[in-house]
Amino acid sequence: MPGRHVVVRNIARPEQGVVARLAEAGVSTVHEAMGRRGFAGTELRPNQQNIRIAGPAVTVSSHPGDNLMIHAAVETCRPGDILVVTTTSPSTDGMFGELLATSLAARGVIGLVTAAGVRDAAELREMKFHVWSRAVSAQGTVKASPGSVNVPVTLGGVRVCPGDVIVADDDGVVVVPRQEAVQTAAQAEKRTAKEAVTRDVLRSGELGVDYYGLRARLAQLGVSYVDGAPSAPEA
Amino acid sequence: MPGRHVVVRNIARPEQGVVARLAEAGVSTVHEAMGRRGFAGTELRPNQQNIRIAGPAVTVSSHPGDNLMIHAAVETCRPGDILVVTTTSPSTDGMFGELLATSLAARGVIGLVTAAGVRDAAELREMKFHVWSRAVSAQGTVKASPGSVNVPVTLGGVRVCPGDVIVADDDGVVVVPRQEAVQTAAQAEKRTAKEAVTRDVLRSGELGVDYYGLRARLAQLGVSYVDGAPSAPEA
Amino acid sequence: MPGRHVVVRNIARPEQGVVARLAEAGVSTVHEAMGRRGFAGTELRPNQQNIRIAGPAVTVSSHPGDNLMIHAAVETCRPGDILVVTTTSPSTDGMFGELLATSLAARGVIGLVTAAGVRDAAELREMKFHVWSRAVSAQGTVKASPGSVNVPVTLGGVRVCPGDVIVADDDGVVVVPRQEAVQTAAQAEKRTAKEAVTRDVLRSGELGVDYYGLRARLAQLGVSYVDGAPSAPEA
Amino acid sequence: MPGRHVVVRNIARPEQGVVARLAEAGVSTVHEAMGRRGFAGTELRPNQQNIRIAGPAVTVSSHPGDNLMIHAAVETCRPGDILVVTTTSPSTDGMFGELLATSLAARGVIGLVTAAGVRDAAELREMKFHVWSRAVSAQGTVKASPGSVNVPVTLGGVRVCPGDVIVADDDGVVVVPRQEAVQTAAQAEKRTAKEAVTRDVLRSGELGVDYYGLRARLAQLGVSYVDGAPSAPEA
Amino acid sequence: MPGRHVVVRNIARPEQGVVARLAEAGVSTVHEAMGRRGFAGTELRPNQQNIRIAGPAVTVSSHPGDNLMIHAAVETCRPGDILVVTTTSPSTDGMFGELLATSLAARGVIGLVTAAGVRDAAELREMKFHVWSRAVSAQGTVKASPGSVNVPVTLGGVRVCPGDVIVADDDGVVVVPRQEAVQTAAQAEKRTAKEAVTRDVLRSGELGVDYYGLRARLAQLGVSYVDGAPSAPEA
Amino acid sequence: MPGRHVVVRNIARPEQGVVARLAEAGVSTVHEAMGRRGFAGTELRPNQQNIRIAGPAVTVSSHPGDNLMIHAAVETCRPGDILVVTTTSPSTDGMFGELLATSLAARGVIGLVTAAGVRDAAELREMKFHVWSRAVSAQGTVKASPGSVNVPVTLGGVRVCPGDVIVADDDGVVVVPRQEAVQTAAQAEKRTAKEAVTRDVLRSGELGVDYYGLRARLAQLGVSYVDGAPSAPEA
Repeated sequence: MPGRHVVVRNIARPEQGVVARLAEAGVSTVHEAMGRRGFAGTELRPNQQNIRIAGPAVTVSSHPGDNLMIHAAVETCRPGDILVVTTTSPSTDGMFGELLATSLAARGVIGLVTAAGVRDAAELREMKFHVWSRAVSAQGTVKASPGSVNVPVTLGGVRVCPGDVIVADDDGVVVVPRQEAVQTAAQAEKRTAKEAVTRDVLRSGELGVDYYGLRARLAQLGVSYVDGAPSAPEA
Repeated sequence: MPGRHVVVRNIARPEQGVVARLAEAGVSTVHEAMGRRGFAGTELRPNQQNIRIAGPAVTVSSHPGDNLMIHAAVETCRPGDILVVTTTSPSTDGMFGELLATSLAARGVIGLVTAAGVRDAAELREMKFHVWSRAVSAQGTVKASPGSVNVPVTLGGVRVCPGDVIVADDDGVVVVPRQEAVQTAAQAEKRTAKEAVTRDVLRSGELGVDYYGLRARLAQLGVSYVDGAPSAPEA
Repeated sequence: MPGRHVVVRNIARPEQGVVARLAEAGVSTVHEAMGRRGFAGTELRPNQQNIRIAGPAVTVSSHPGDNLMIHAAVETCRPGDILVVTTTSPSTDGMFGELLATSLAARGVIGLVTAAGVRDAAELREMKFHVWSRAVSAQGTVKASPGSVNVPVTLGGVRVCPGDVIVADDDGVVVVPRQEAVQTAAQAEKRTAKEAVTRDVLRSGELGVDYYGLRARLAQLGVSYVDGAPSAPEA
Repeated sequence: MPGRHVVVRNIARPEQGVVARLAEAGVSTVHEAMGRRGFAGTELRPNQQNIRIAGPAVTVSSHPGDNLMIHAAVETCRPGDILVVTTTSPSTDGMFGELLATSLAARGVIGLVTAAGVRDAAELREMKFHVWSRAVSAQGTVKASPGSVNVPVTLGGVRVCPGDVIVADDDGVVVVPRQEAVQTAAQAEKRTAKEAVTRDVLRSGELGVDYYGLRARLAQLGVSYVDGAPSAPEA
Repeated sequence: MPGRHVVVRNIARPEQGVVARLAEAGVSTVHEAMGRRGFAGTELRPNQQNIRIAGPAVTVSSHPGDNLMIHAAVETCRPGDILVVTTTSPSTDGMFGELLATSLAARGVIGLVTAAGVRDAAELREMKFHVWSRAVSAQGTVKASPGSVNVPVTLGGVRVCPGDVIVADDDGVVVVPRQEAVQTAAQAEKRTAKEAVTRDVLRSGELGVDYYGLRARLAQLGVSYVDGAPSAPEA
Repeated sequence: MPGRHVVVRNIARPEQGVVARLAEAGVSTVHEAMGRRGFAGTELRPNQQNIRIAGPAVTVSSHPGDNLMIHAAVETCRPGDILVVTTTSPSTDGMFGELLATSLAARGVIGLVTAAGVRDAAELREMKFHVWSRAVSAQGTVKASPGSVNVPVTLGGVRVCPGDVIVADDDGVVVVPRQEAVQTAAQAEKRTAKEAVTRDVLRSGELGVDYYGLRARLAQLGVSYVDGAPSAPEA
């Protein structure tokens, strides 16, 4: 199967404006705007707090414990990109650290999302290179096995194609297919506007069960109201 | 089995004074004061640092991936309460976010403890709504299945009845049955006083093995003292 | 098997200078300097941020849920030491808290690394007693079963002999056998110097694939470069 | 807190007939008959295949890594009982083996359900002493710390009171509160009868969506039917 | 976002011959034949031993704890198909049991692969309906939330499109994209033939390092041979 | 650090007789005979049932996802040996299958213990090559990175030196240092003899609390006996 491992040099990217709009919306709102799709799972944790970014994905598929293909990916990156690293089988190794971040930052890359581990966690925070990873690990890696750059990969159960928009913040990582970016940004903005109204309503003390009209549904589902706990069954 | 799902409107709560005393003592001391019971496990992690709260539990039992019953629970809450959310099977979904927190805060609720996930983690910290959860997750939920409010639930292997006192800080969450609250607060205060003395003793350099009288026990258990390591067996 | 449990009173320690050099290098660099050995795994997480320490290991092997032997270990500690606690089977119990930290701090011990849990997490941070642990847990322990102090133990899959150098920071914990400390420090310093050069090169925009000479390896491994993604295979 | 650890000698048990009826129904049917409550989680796995038993629970709460209280529990057992062992913090240790099984079998006990580990797995199968456990482990335990027998415990998130009915088979373990045993057995039998009818219907080729009347619900939930996949969105 | 949830009625399937050839090859050989892609991870475990099947995938994307869409999927199945069930967030619930298996078997479906749980494990084995799942669980589910049938899903990190070939045996599950099925079958057969030769060589006592020509590589990688262990370093 | 990776050709082995005696005793008894040391944890599970073996360890330290060093290890094996494979960071990849087993069987090797995964699980059972592993996985591996053979490794938290005796059965794996083999075999036989007596006592109905003299200890630990459950506290 010759030619199986490739580095794709040029990828299609979404236009800058829509990326900024998705960053503004944040992970949870974007996920809702997509019809509750695209969330890359609870195992990808931020290495820093209170940071929200978005950018086109440059994707890497690596052998576990090997960061050769991350090095190969650097030259395909452009300012504003986010590097997405996956491994062909589960790994927590520290495949990425401060030197790779320096190299990526020199090209304007704004962050890393990885299904494996990172090291130099403190230094990465200090240099404000933002990272979401499954682990922090000092475990070093080799540069011995081939892989691919800018092919479709799976991250936390979600497919990522090169050029898809990655949105990442304290709630984790969401993947927006490039073709859905504009529509999703619009939906997200509608949702944000609607939530601002809802927030005011709830802050005023009105109940969600009333505002969302949930009382009828509770009744229909057989939920009954009782006063006092004496005979309440156990959940 | 009609009427199986209920919302219990009025629950018995402990008196305010004892809640404040338990908050003052903190999770680990309260756990010890109860004879090392009530700790809800290491998976419930705080979303913020250096916060210690206590309050009566309003309990929710939800279907996984469904937050209908959290909405139903809001109106049963009173100022000072802590909402306790469990699911009928394991879930990490982001069942709770900033809008629900706004609604609860409007009623004076001071925090959330959940066996599932939360989202809007950064916003929750910013609004100082304190959360202990098993996960942070953007994954959205539906409002489709019935559950119960203010029935006994199990949280991290510990039974929680509505009105039991939840104490939560950086060490996790402990549950004090309402009927044991006064006795536990008294025990906790005794322990705190005793620890203040012990702290001074240990700070002065006296050894715990002497102060606690452990040398005899070590001898009785067959622990021997040797000088130098040449022939030390492996653990 | 009489005499199986021992407390070894005097252990050989590395000289202070080399410990300071290893602390300066940090976990990931020391791990690389050892030929990528000695990392104690991703489960040992720091209780604080941006702290880097090193010191000789005083080792404890305890029964799970029992901290008797930690108390027995205190008097074998000297200023600058790091206590290493393991259990004979997996445990997350809060075997260590602020009182034990007070006692150790009084002897000049600078930190704790434990395969089990700690409690009083906030207090430990406040008193600047640095901790790396597998869990934070309020769960209390007994003082009922024998164990050993200053015998070889295994921590996160890595063997630790008393007097080995523990280096710990935000990347985790690495163990340097005492006999390898000087050689490792030298290697680590070489590596640090080399990385400073590399950092400047990468910051200037030169690519790692060129600087490290990886293009030939990529070609040899059959990685091909393509323009555009239409026919890119899936990873 | 004197008297905190107790051995309760005599417990109320359900009558034999209802236990047999629950055994006949099996775990999943009983769980459904209780309104989908009582399942003790997916971590309790059988040590044997194709075995289904039921019996009153004799409960044990032990310190982790300590089987003293299992020994204390033996004399409280009667023929037909099932021993339920929990630990005060998570443990996988092999707290139970062939000798304890011999002792229990001599009293007519028919099985063990434990949140910790067992050893002598092959011997237990050979002697047909049925076991559901969280782990198989050779790790030995001590007899040093107190605990309780026949107090309420929590098993896989489910409360078990002494005398509650344990039903266990290849699907896991379900707990039926003693007071609900008769009602649950009746519900389970209804369900079994109904399933026999459904089975015949489905075997004949009639679709569940028709037989259960689900087509309307699918339509109401906005699920649309399309022919061919060209434009199908990703899940 | 109307129309988001769909049931796709007709899917393209591979021709029967190639499916049989892939079944003959087995999971590990097919995975290798695809260039080590397509393995759906170690968490999908067989409910039976020594069974190897292959068939076109009918895919289901369900809400966790809800099996409505499995019922909706039945009528889209044809003889020889394998049902693939995923959930929009992680779940171990027993979404599938003997009644659904009866319904599927009536349509000629030969097995189930699910990222969630199954129940009636013993009955499924007895009726020879083959299952690979992440869990066995009695936990029951509702029929309340929408999902999709025959859209692309992700299973154990691998994308599955409807009509892709599922191969499953004791080694787990591998997914062969429909368009790659013929090429993969041919590669797998070449590999099987080659392994038969290798097997004979190795059985005769010839070493793999010689037969595969690995001695040069070991030397090139700096692996040295030594006699006796006295000074061997630790791994 | 030249020469870091080595293959040690000749290792010291225990004499055959003691190996057979340890196999006879089995994992749990040997673990107890060593003073409850040496058990390699609950994650190493057998690929077959009711098999008990023992043999000298030939050890392998591999890069994750790479089985080059297993091939290198074959020629150092002798009849009766057990191959022990570890990786330098966690891996579940299927590093070992039927072809390697054929090669090892041709040299008389009787089994494999691996901290990673195996494939061809069904074929390995059929050819009666016994395996204990952390996972079953089809995931293939490369032959690209160096490692070592017959150096000390850590397996499930236990140090294994080449030539140490591995005992494996349904209870897992225990490691007996070569120098302790004779003493351990003797202790194990004493224990087996003693257990035969105990078994008869317990089978006759005498209670363990009486036979082991535990009543005094229970009393000393403050465990009290009560009749009936009305006021029993919760565990």
